[in-house]
Amino acid sequence: MRDALVAAALRLFDERGFEQTTVDDIVALAGVGRRSFFRYFPSKESVVFPDHDGCLAEMNAFLADPAGAAEDPVERAGAAARLVLRMYAADPVFSVRRYRLTREVPALRAHELSAVWRYERALADYLRSRYAHRPDGRLRADVVAAAVVAAHNNALRSWLRSGAERDPEASVTEALAYVVATWGDQAPVPAGPTARGEEADGADGAEEVREGEEVVVLVARRGTPMWRVVDEIQAALSAT
Amino acid sequence: MRDALVAAALRLFDERGFEQTTVDDIVALAGVGRRSFFRYFPSKESVVFPDHDGCLAEMNAFLADPAGAAEDPVERAGAAARLVLRMYAADPVFSVRRYRLTREVPALRAHELSAVWRYERALADYLRSRYAHRPDGRLRADVVAAAVVAAHNNALRSWLRSGAERDPEASVTEALAYVVATWGDQAPVPAGPTARGEEADGADGAEEVREGEEVVVLVARRGTPMWRVVDEIQAALSAT
Repeated sequence: MRDALVAAALRLFDERGFEQTTVDDIVALAGVGRRSFFRYFPSKESVVFPDHDGCLAEMNAFLADPAGAAEDPVERAGAAARLVLRMYAADPVFSVRRYRLTREVPALRAHELSAVWRYERALADYLRSRYAHRPDGRLRADVVAAAVVAAHNNALRSWLRSGAERDPEASVTEALAYVVATWGDQAPVPAGPTARGEEADGADGAEEVREGEEVVVLVARRGTPMWRVVDEIQAALSAT
Repeated sequence: MRDALVAAALRLFDERGFEQTTVDDIVALAGVGRRSFFRYFPSKESVVFPDHDGCLAEMNAFLADPAGAAEDPVERAGAAARLVLRMYAADPVFSVRRYRLTREVPALRAHELSAVWRYERALADYLRSRYAHRPDGRLRADVVAAAVVAAHNNALRSWLRSGAERDPEASVTEALAYVVATWGDQAPVPAGPTARGEEADGADGAEEVREGEEVVVLVARRGTPMWRVVDEIQAALSAT
Protein backbone atom coordinates (compact mmCIF):
# COMPACT_ATOMS: atom_id res chain seq x y z
CA MET A 1 0.00 0.00 0.00
CA ARG A 2 2.89 2.30 0.80
CA ASP A 3 4.40 1.73 -2.65
CA ALA A 4 1.00 2.30 -4.28
CA LEU A 5 0.70 5.66 -2.52
CA VAL A 6 4.18 6.70 -3.63
CA ALA A 7 3.47 5.66 -7.24
CA ALA A 8 0.11 7.48 -7.30
CA ALA A 9 1.62 10.63 -5.78
CA LEU A 10 4.52 10.76 -8.23
CA ARG A 11 2.20 10.25 -11.18
CA LEU A 12 -0.09 13.08 -10.08
CA PHE A 13 2.81 15.42 -9.26
CA ASP A 14 4.19 14.83 -12.75
CA GLU A 15 0.82 15.27 -14.46
CA ARG A 16 -0.75 18.14 -12.50
CA GLY A 17 2.09 19.62 -10.52
CA PHE A 18 2.85 19.27 -6.83
CA GLU A 19 0.86 22.27 -5.62
CA GLN A 20 -2.22 21.31 -7.62
CA THR A 21 -2.36 17.80 -6.17
CA THR A 22 -4.07 17.13 -2.83
CA VAL A 23 -3.70 14.19 -0.48
CA ASP A 24 -7.32 13.34 -1.38
CA ASP A 25 -6.32 13.06 -5.04
CA ILE A 26 -3.50 10.70 -4.13
CA VAL A 27 -5.59 8.38 -1.98
CA ALA A 28 -8.35 8.32 -4.62
CA LEU A 29 -5.91 7.22 -7.31
CA ALA A 30 -4.25 4.66 -5.01
CA GLY A 31 -7.68 3.37 -3.97
CA VAL A 32 -7.11 3.69 -0.23
CA GLY A 33 -8.48 5.86 2.58
CA ARG A 34 -7.07 9.16 3.75
CA ARG A 35 -6.10 7.73 7.13
CA SER A 36 -3.94 5.12 5.43
CA PHE A 37 -1.93 7.91 3.82
CA PHE A 38 -1.17 9.56 7.13
CA ARG A 39 -0.30 6.23 8.70
CA TYR A 40 2.69 6.11 6.34
CA PHE A 41 3.51 9.75 5.68
CA PRO A 42 3.29 12.84 7.89
CA SER A 43 2.84 15.21 4.93
CA LYS A 44 2.39 15.49 1.18
CA GLU A 45 6.09 16.36 0.86
CA SER A 46 7.27 13.25 2.66
CA VAL A 47 5.66 10.86 0.17
CA VAL A 48 8.34 11.95 -2.32
CA PHE A 49 11.08 10.87 0.11
CA PRO A 50 9.74 7.59 1.46
CA ASP A 51 13.12 6.11 2.40
CA HIS A 52 15.03 8.87 4.19
CA ASP A 53 13.87 7.92 7.69
CA GLY A 54 14.90 4.31 7.18
CA CYS A 55 18.21 5.34 5.65
CA LEU A 56 18.98 7.69 8.53
CA ALA A 57 18.26 4.90 11.02
CA GLU A 58 20.56 2.60 9.06
CA MET A 59 23.27 5.27 9.04
CA ASN A 60 23.03 5.77 12.80
CA ALA A 61 23.25 2.01 13.38
CA PHE A 62 26.28 1.79 11.08
CA LEU A 63 28.02 4.65 12.89
CA ALA A 64 27.23 3.17 16.30
CA ASP A 65 28.75 -0.21 15.36
CA PRO A 66 31.93 -0.66 17.48
CA ALA A 67 33.56 -2.40 14.48
CA GLY A 68 34.12 1.05 12.98
CA ALA A 69 36.23 2.34 15.86
CA ALA A 70 39.48 1.12 14.29
CA GLU A 71 38.72 2.73 10.93
CA ASP A 72 39.83 6.21 9.89
CA PRO A 73 36.99 8.50 11.08
CA VAL A 74 36.66 10.22 7.69
CA GLU A 75 36.60 6.92 5.80
CA ARG A 76 33.93 5.67 8.19
CA ALA A 77 31.84 8.82 7.71
CA GLY A 78 32.23 8.43 3.95
CA ALA A 79 31.09 4.80 4.13
CA ALA A 80 28.04 5.97 6.09
CA ALA A 81 27.26 8.58 3.43
CA ARG A 82 27.36 5.86 0.76
CA LEU A 83 24.26 4.34 2.34
CA VAL A 84 22.38 7.32 0.93
CA LEU A 85 23.86 6.73 -2.51
CA ARG A 86 22.78 3.08 -2.39
CA MET A 87 19.24 4.10 -1.49
CA TYR A 88 19.15 6.34 -4.60
CA ALA A 89 20.87 3.75 -6.78
CA ALA A 90 18.40 1.03 -5.76
CA ASP A 91 15.75 2.73 -7.91
CA PRO A 92 17.39 4.99 -10.51
CA VAL A 93 14.20 5.75 -12.45
CA PHE A 94 12.37 6.94 -9.34
CA SER A 95 15.45 8.86 -8.18
CA VAL A 96 15.74 10.79 -11.45
CA ARG A 97 12.01 11.67 -11.45
CA ARG A 98 12.27 12.87 -7.88
CA TYR A 99 15.42 14.87 -8.64
CA ARG A 100 13.65 16.74 -11.45
CA LEU A 101 10.57 17.36 -9.32
CA THR A 102 12.65 18.55 -6.36
CA ARG A 103 14.43 21.12 -8.48
CA GLU A 104 11.11 22.63 -9.52
CA VAL A 105 9.11 22.60 -6.28
CA PRO A 106 10.40 24.79 -3.42
CA ALA A 107 8.47 22.79 -0.79
CA LEU A 108 10.22 19.60 -1.91
CA ARG A 109 13.57 21.34 -2.02
CA ALA A 110 13.03 22.45 1.58
CA HIS A 111 12.08 18.91 2.56
CA GLU A 112 15.19 17.53 0.91
CA LEU A 113 17.41 20.10 2.63
CA SER A 114 15.99 18.94 5.98
CA ALA A 115 16.89 15.35 5.11
CA VAL A 116 20.42 16.35 4.09
CA TRP A 117 20.76 18.33 7.31
CA ARG A 118 19.78 15.30 9.40
CA TYR A 119 22.40 13.14 7.65
CA GLU A 120 25.01 15.83 8.14
CA ARG A 121 24.16 16.11 11.85
CA ALA A 122 24.44 12.32 12.24
CA LEU A 123 27.90 12.39 10.64
CA ALA A 124 28.97 15.44 12.67
CA ASP A 125 27.84 13.81 15.94
CA TYR A 126 29.79 10.69 15.06
CA LEU A 127 32.91 12.69 14.18
CA ARG A 128 32.61 14.76 17.35
CA SER A 129 32.85 11.56 19.36
CA ARG A 130 35.83 10.34 17.30
CA TYR A 131 37.55 13.73 17.68
CA ALA A 132 36.62 14.20 21.33
CA HIS A 133 40.32 14.19 22.31
CA ARG A 134 41.21 17.03 19.94
CA PRO A 135 41.07 20.66 21.05
CA ASP A 136 39.56 21.52 17.63
CA GLY A 137 37.30 18.45 17.75
CA ARG A 138 33.89 20.08 17.38
CA LEU A 139 34.95 22.45 14.63
CA ARG A 140 36.80 19.72 12.75
CA ALA A 141 33.80 17.39 13.06
CA ASP A 142 31.41 19.97 11.64
CA VAL A 143 33.73 20.91 8.78
CA VAL A 144 34.52 17.31 7.83
CA ALA A 145 30.85 16.25 8.00
CA ALA A 146 29.95 19.12 5.67
CA ALA A 147 32.81 18.20 3.33
CA VAL A 148 31.74 14.54 3.22
CA VAL A 149 28.14 15.49 2.45
CA ALA A 150 29.18 18.03 -0.20
CA ALA A 151 31.48 15.55 -1.95
CA HIS A 152 28.85 12.80 -1.82
CA ASN A 153 26.15 15.11 -3.15
CA ASN A 154 28.39 16.49 -5.88
CA ALA A 155 28.79 12.98 -7.28
CA LEU A 156 25.18 11.97 -6.59
CA ARG A 157 23.78 15.04 -8.36
CA SER A 158 26.06 14.63 -11.40
CA TRP A 159 24.77 11.08 -11.67
CA LEU A 160 21.12 12.15 -11.36
CA ARG A 161 21.61 15.01 -13.84
CA SER A 162 23.09 12.59 -16.36
CA GLY A 163 19.95 10.41 -16.14
CA ALA A 164 21.44 7.84 -13.74
CA GLU A 165 22.57 5.51 -16.46
CA ARG A 166 26.09 4.51 -15.46
CA ASP A 167 27.08 3.02 -12.11
CA PRO A 168 27.49 5.90 -9.61
CA GLU A 169 29.78 4.03 -7.19
CA ALA A 170 33.07 4.97 -8.87
CA SER A 171 32.44 8.72 -8.96
CA VAL A 172 31.23 8.75 -5.34
CA THR A 173 34.33 6.79 -4.33
CA GLU A 174 36.51 9.35 -6.08
CA ALA A 175 34.72 12.31 -4.49
CA LEU A 176 34.93 10.80 -1.00
CA ALA A 177 38.61 9.91 -1.49
CA TYR A 178 39.19 13.61 -2.07
CA VAL A 179 37.88 14.39 1.41
CA VAL A 180 39.77 11.49 3.01
CA ALA A 181 43.01 12.69 1.38
CA THR A 182 42.43 16.11 2.96
CA TRP A 183 41.02 15.26 6.37
CA GLY A 184 41.79 11.60 6.98
CA ASP A 185 44.26 10.48 9.64
CA GLN A 186 47.01 10.23 7.04
CA ALA A 187 46.41 13.57 5.36
CA PRO A 188 49.06 16.28 5.62
CA VAL A 189 48.46 18.54 8.60
CA PRO A 190 47.61 22.10 7.51
CA ALA A 191 50.29 24.59 8.42
CA GLY A 192 47.83 26.89 10.15
CA PRO A 193 47.59 30.64 9.71
CA THR A 194 50.62 31.53 11.81
CA ALA A 195 53.01 29.69 9.52
CA ARG A 196 51.74 31.42 6.40
CA GLY A 197 53.02 34.40 4.47
CA GLU A 198 53.86 37.59 6.31
CA GLU A 199 52.90 36.35 9.72
CA ALA A 200 55.53 33.63 9.69
CA ASP A 201 57.96 33.46 12.55
CA GLY A 202 61.29 34.83 11.42
CA ALA A 203 62.90 37.04 8.83
CA ASP A 204 65.06 34.24 7.52
CA GLY A 205 62.12 32.17 6.30
CA ALA A 206 59.73 30.21 8.45
CA GLU A 207 59.68 26.54 8.75
CA GLU A 208 57.59 24.30 10.79
CA VAL A 209 57.39 20.58 11.18
CA ARG A 210 54.19 18.94 12.24
CA GLU A 211 53.60 15.29 12.76
CA GLY A 212 50.76 13.07 11.67
CA GLU A 213 50.56 9.44 12.69
CA GLU A 214 52.68 7.97 9.94
CA VAL A 215 53.77 10.91 7.87
CA VAL A 216 55.79 13.99 8.58
CA VAL A 217 54.79 17.22 6.95
CA LEU A 218 57.25 20.04 6.57
CA VAL A 219 56.14 23.46 5.45
CA ALA A 220 59.00 25.82 4.56
CA ARG A 221 59.04 29.24 2.98
CA ARG A 222 60.89 29.18 -0.32
CA GLY A 223 64.44 30.40 0.26
CA THR A 224 64.74 28.92 3.76
CA PRO A 225 68.39 27.98 4.47
CA MET A 226 68.92 24.28 3.88
CA TRP A 227 70.60 23.69 7.25
CA ARG A 228 67.46 24.83 9.08
CA VAL A 229 65.28 22.57 6.99
CA VAL A 230 67.53 19.58 7.62
CA ASP A 231 67.66 20.27 11.36
CA GLU A 232 63.90 20.44 11.61
CA ILE A 233 63.16 17.45 9.48
CA GLN A 234 65.77 15.29 11.16
CA ALA A 235 64.21 16.05 14.52
CA ALA A 236 60.76 15.20 13.18
CA LEU A 237 61.72 12.00 11.38
CA SER A 238 63.53 10.61 14.40
CA ALA A 239 60.75 11.54 16.85
CA THR A 240 58.48 8.76 18.00
CA MET B 1 6.41 49.43 9.14
CA ARG B 2 8.60 46.50 8.24
CA ASP B 3 10.35 46.67 11.62
CA ALA B 4 6.99 46.95 13.39
CA LEU B 5 5.79 43.79 11.66
CA VAL B 6 8.94 41.91 12.65
CA ALA B 7 8.66 43.08 16.27
CA ALA B 8 4.97 42.16 16.47
CA ALA B 9 5.58 38.74 14.94
CA LEU B 10 8.46 37.87 17.26
CA ARG B 11 6.47 38.94 20.29
CA LEU B 12 3.49 36.77 19.31
CA PHE B 13 5.68 33.79 18.38
CA ASP B 14 7.32 33.99 21.82
CA GLU B 15 4.02 34.40 23.66
CA ARG B 16 1.69 32.01 21.79
CA GLY B 17 3.99 29.89 19.70
CA PHE B 18 4.68 30.05 15.99
CA GLU B 19 1.95 27.64 14.87
CA GLN B 20 -0.72 29.34 16.99
CA THR B 21 -0.03 32.77 15.52
CA THR B 22 -1.65 33.85 12.25
CA VAL B 23 -0.65 36.63 9.88
CA ASP B 24 -3.90 38.33 10.91
CA ASP B 25 -2.73 38.35 14.53
CA ILE B 26 0.56 39.93 13.48
CA VAL B 27 -0.97 42.71 11.40
CA ALA B 28 -3.53 43.44 14.15
CA LEU B 29 -0.78 43.90 16.73
CA ALA B 30 1.35 45.96 14.35
CA GLY B 31 -1.67 48.07 13.43
CA VAL B 32 -1.35 47.62 9.68
CA GLY B 33 -3.33 45.87 6.95
CA ARG B 34 -2.84 42.33 5.75
CA ARG B 35 -1.67 43.48 2.33
CA SER B 36 1.14 45.47 3.91
CA PHE B 37 2.45 42.27 5.46
CA PHE B 38 2.64 40.49 2.13
CA ARG B 39 4.25 43.50 0.50
CA TYR B 40 7.26 42.88 2.73
CA PHE B 41 7.16 39.15 3.40
CA PRO B 42 6.11 36.21 1.22
CA SER B 43 5.21 34.02 4.22
CA LYS B 44 4.85 33.85 7.98
CA GLU B 45 8.24 32.09 8.16
CA SER B 46 10.08 34.81 6.29
CA VAL B 47 9.20 37.52 8.83
CA VAL B 48 11.62 35.80 11.22
CA PHE B 49 14.45 36.16 8.69
CA PRO B 50 13.91 39.68 7.36
CA ASP B 51 17.52 40.29 6.29
CA HIS B 52 18.61 37.15 4.45
CA ASP B 53 17.58 38.37 0.98
CA GLY B 54 19.48 41.61 1.44
CA CYS B 55 22.50 39.81 2.84
CA LEU B 56 22.56 37.34 -0.06
CA ALA B 57 22.45 40.23 -2.54
CA GLU B 58 25.32 41.89 -0.67
CA MET B 59 27.28 38.62 -0.74
CA ASN B 60 26.79 38.22 -4.48
CA ALA B 61 27.90 41.80 -5.10
CA PHE B 62 30.98 41.26 -2.91
CA LEU B 63 31.89 38.06 -4.77
CA ALA B 64 31.36 39.71 -8.17
CA ASP B 65 33.70 42.60 -7.30
CA PRO B 66 36.80 42.28 -9.53
CA ALA B 67 38.92 43.56 -6.61
CA GLY B 68 38.68 40.07 -5.10
CA ALA B 69 40.29 38.32 -8.06
CA ALA B 70 43.79 38.69 -6.62
CA GLU B 71 42.79 37.30 -3.24
CA ASP B 72 43.04 33.65 -2.21
CA PRO B 73 39.67 32.14 -3.27
CA VAL B 74 39.07 30.54 0.13
CA GLU B 75 39.89 33.75 1.99
CA ARG B 76 37.52 35.61 -0.29
CA ALA B 77 34.75 33.08 0.28
CA GLY B 78 35.37 33.35 4.03
CA ALA B 79 35.15 37.14 3.87
CA ALA B 80 31.84 36.77 2.04
CA ALA B 81 30.53 34.41 4.73
CA ARG B 82 31.40 36.99 7.38
CA LEU B 83 28.72 39.26 5.92
CA VAL B 84 26.22 36.82 7.41
CA LEU B 85 27.93 37.02 10.78
CA ARG B 86 27.79 40.81 10.68
CA MET B 87 24.06 40.70 9.93
CA TYR B 88 23.54 38.55 13.05
CA ALA B 89 25.94 40.63 15.14
CA ALA B 90 24.19 43.88 14.21
CA ASP B 91 21.28 42.87 16.47
CA PRO B 92 22.41 40.26 19.01
CA VAL B 93 19.21 40.31 21.08
CA PHE B 94 17.02 39.64 18.05
CA SER B 95 19.48 37.00 16.78
CA VAL B 96 19.41 35.05 20.04
CA ARG B 97 15.59 35.12 20.19
CA ARG B 98 15.41 33.90 16.63
CA TYR B 99 17.99 31.19 17.28
CA ARG B 100 15.92 29.80 20.16
CA LEU B 101 12.71 29.98 18.15
CA THR B 102 14.30 28.32 15.13
CA ARG B 103 15.49 25.38 17.19
CA GLU B 104 11.94 24.74 18.36
CA VAL B 105 9.88 25.26 15.21
CA PRO B 106 10.47 22.84 12.31
CA ALA B 107 9.01 25.27 9.74
CA LEU B 108 11.53 27.92 10.78
CA ARG B 109 14.35 25.40 10.79
CA ALA B 110 13.40 24.48 7.21
CA HIS B 111 13.33 28.14 6.24
CA GLU B 112 16.75 28.69 7.76
CA LEU B 113 18.19 25.66 5.97
CA SER B 114 16.98 27.16 2.68
CA ALA B 115 18.77 30.41 3.49
CA VAL B 116 21.97 28.56 4.38
CA TRP B 117 21.67 26.58 1.18
CA ARG B 118 21.41 29.77 -0.91
CA TYR B 119 24.54 31.21 0.72
CA GLU B 120 26.39 27.96 0.15
CA ARG B 121 25.36 27.91 -3.53
CA ALA B 122 26.54 31.52 -3.94
CA LEU B 123 29.94 30.60 -2.47
CA ALA B 124 30.15 27.39 -4.52
CA ASP B 125 29.33 29.25 -7.76
CA TYR B 126 32.02 31.80 -6.97
CA LEU B 127 34.59 29.09 -6.19
CA ARG B 128 33.66 27.17 -9.35
CA SER B 129 34.61 30.21 -11.38
CA ARG B 130 37.88 30.66 -9.45
CA TYR B 131 38.69 26.95 -9.86
CA ALA B 132 37.54 26.75 -13.48
CA HIS B 133 41.08 25.84 -14.58
CA ARG B 134 41.33 22.85 -12.25
CA PRO B 135 40.25 19.39 -13.32
CA ASP B 136 38.72 18.90 -9.85
CA GLY B 137 37.27 22.43 -9.89
CA ARG B 138 33.58 21.69 -9.38
CA LEU B 139 34.13 19.12 -6.67
CA ARG B 140 36.65 21.31 -4.88
CA ALA B 141 34.32 24.31 -5.08
CA ASP B 142 31.42 22.39 -3.56
CA VAL B 143 33.54 20.91 -0.79
CA VAL B 144 35.24 24.20 0.10
CA ALA B 145 31.94 26.12 0.07
CA ALA B 146 30.45 23.54 2.45
CA ALA B 147 33.53 23.73 4.68
CA VAL B 148 33.40 27.55 4.81
CA VAL B 149 29.70 27.50 5.72
CA ALA B 150 30.19 24.77 8.34
CA ALA B 151 33.10 26.60 9.98
CA HIS B 152 31.23 29.92 9.95
CA ASN B 153 28.10 28.34 11.39
CA ASN B 154 30.02 26.42 14.03
CA ALA B 155 31.34 29.73 15.40
CA LEU B 156 28.07 31.60 14.83
CA ARG B 157 26.02 28.97 16.68
CA SER B 158 28.44 28.80 19.62
CA TRP B 159 28.09 32.53 19.94
CA LEU B 160 24.28 32.40 19.76
CA ARG B 161 24.13 29.49 22.24
CA SER B 162 26.26 31.46 24.69
CA GLY B 163 23.76 34.34 24.59
CA ALA B 164 25.74 36.49 22.10
CA GLU B 165 27.52 38.46 24.78
CA ARG B 166 31.14 38.56 23.63
CA ASP B 167 32.35 39.77 20.23
CA PRO B 168 31.92 36.90 17.74
CA GLU B 169 34.51 38.15 15.24
CA ALA B 170 37.52 36.42 16.79
CA SER B 171 35.98 32.94 16.92
CA VAL B 172 34.66 33.22 13.35
CA THR B 173 38.11 34.38 12.22
CA GLU B 174 39.66 31.35 13.90
CA ALA B 175 37.12 28.94 12.39
CA LEU B 176 37.57 30.36 8.88
CA ALA B 177 41.37 30.32 9.23
CA TYR B 178 41.05 26.59 9.82
CA VAL B 179 39.46 26.17 6.39
CA VAL B 180 41.93 28.54 4.70
CA ALA B 181 44.82 26.58 6.21
CA THR B 182 43.38 23.41 4.69
CA TRP B 183 42.09 24.60 1.32
CA GLY B 184 43.71 27.96 0.66
CA ASP B 185 46.28 28.45 -2.08
CA GLN B 186 49.08 28.05 0.43
CA ALA B 187 47.75 24.99 2.18
CA PRO B 188 49.69 21.74 1.89
CA VAL B 189 48.47 19.72 -1.05
CA PRO B 190 46.86 16.49 0.10
CA ALA B 191 48.96 13.50 -0.81
CA GLY B 192 45.99 11.84 -2.50
CA PRO B 193 44.92 8.27 -2.00
CA THR B 194 47.74 6.77 -4.04
CA ALA B 195 50.44 8.25 -1.84
CA ARG B 196 48.86 7.09 1.42
CA GLY B 197 49.65 4.18 3.67
CA GLU B 198 50.17 0.82 2.07
CA GLU B 199 49.69 2.09 -1.45
CA ALA B 200 52.67 4.43 -1.22
CA ASP B 201 55.22 4.27 -3.98
CA GLY B 202 58.20 2.40 -2.70
CA ALA B 203 59.25 0.06 0.05
CA ASP B 204 61.76 2.55 1.42
CA GLY B 205 59.12 5.13 2.36
CA ALA B 206 57.29 7.55 0.13
CA GLU B 207 58.08 11.15 -0.16
CA GLU B 208 56.62 13.80 -2.25
CA VAL B 209 57.35 17.45 -2.70
CA ARG B 210 54.68 19.80 -3.92
CA GLU B 211 54.94 23.49 -4.42
CA GLY B 212 52.64 26.30 -3.41
CA GLU B 213 53.22 29.92 -4.29
CA GLU B 214 55.50 30.88 -1.44
CA VAL B 215 55.94 27.74 0.55
CA VAL B 216 57.26 24.29 -0.13
CA VAL B 217 55.45 21.38 1.41
CA LEU B 218 57.17 18.08 1.90
CA VAL B 219 55.23 15.01 2.93
CA ALA B 220 57.41 12.09 4.00
CA ARG B 221 56.62 8.78 5.57
CA ARG B 222 58.27 8.45 8.97
CA GLY B 223 61.47 6.40 8.55
CA THR B 224 62.26 7.78 5.09
CA PRO B 225 66.06 7.88 4.56
CA MET B 226 67.39 11.38 5.19
CA TRP B 227 69.34 11.53 1.91
CA ARG B 228 66.12 11.11 -0.09
CA VAL B 229 64.42 13.83 1.89
CA VAL B 230 67.31 16.24 1.40
CA ASP B 231 67.48 15.50 -2.34
CA GLU B 232 63.80 16.19 -2.78
CA ILE B 233 63.65 19.29 -0.68
CA GLN B 234 66.77 20.79 -2.22
CA ALA B 235 65.24 20.37 -5.66
CA ALA B 236 62.03 21.99 -4.51
CA LEU B 237 63.58 24.91 -2.63
CA SER B 238 65.78 25.84 -5.57
CA ALA B 239 62.96 25.57 -8.13
CA THR B 240 61.39 28.82 -9.32
